[in-house]
Amino acid sequence: MNRRRDRPQRTHRFAYNGLDRVIHERARLGVLTSLVAHRRGLLFRDLKQLCGLTDGNLNRHLQVLNAAKLVEISKGFEHNRWQTVCRITPEGRKRYLEYLGVLEQVIRDAAAAVEAEANGNAVRGLTRS
Amino acid sequence: MNRRRDRPQRTHRFAYNGLDRVIHERARLGVLTSLVAHRRGLLFRDLKQLCGLTDGNLNRHLQVLNAAKLVEISKGFEHNRWQTVCRITPEGRKRYLEYLGVLEQVIRDAAAAVEAEANGNAVRGLTRS
Repeated sequence: MNRRRDRPQRTHRFAYNGLDRVIHERARLGVLTSLVAHRRGLLFRDLKQLCGLTDGNLNRHLQVLNAAKLVEISKGFEHNRWQTVCRITPEGRKRYLEYLGVLEQVIRDAAAAVEAEANGNAVRGLTRS
Repeated sequence: MNRRRDRPQRTHRFAYNGLDRVIHERARLGVLTSLVAHRRGLLFRDLKQLCGLTDGNLNRHLQVLNAAKLVEISKGFEHNRWQTVCRITPEGRKRYLEYLGVLEQVIRDAAAAVEAEANGNAVRGLTRS
């Protein structure tokens, strides 16, 4: 190992491997947050509306979430016709909460970095220790 | 418009369009958080280490960030040789902070949803109003 100035001390400090890519993708994050907020499930068209997605996009993301066992899709007879109902699974809820823990860590890191910069402690690129 | 039960009331409530995809991608989020935390810049190899990325991956993400004017890349003579130095630009810092504001909103939404569920208020899928 070379001896170096300004060497950040923690390996992979900002890797955030816990940010599960299946959940982290922007549209899917919105879908899962909607479904966590509506535990009895949402009709496809309401979910589409809440997330600002097209039919095609929502379908694509639901396929990914369903394949990962985070979301279940069923047909229910409501309002005089068959409707597609989307729900988060218990596994999905668990993994969503784990993901949120990592997201909170990102925000803590960022807040610490911004604060350190404001305090003028970031000299020589060594704010993390 | 049909009259419907259980209709969530806010349009695009969970769209999170402010989650800029250039910043939101997991590896790039780590890169930018590292660079915000090290305002004088980081050597390529230190940034790679902090983010747990390969040379190829970091190069690819730096290209995207540089094209979006969020990061600047320069060559500096340090430790007796030319080194690649990466820094966040003022524009990058500004957009990163805007992004963080949206990320905090996601966490607030999620926390509210989880809390409402715990309180049993999520009956009929109508926790958001």
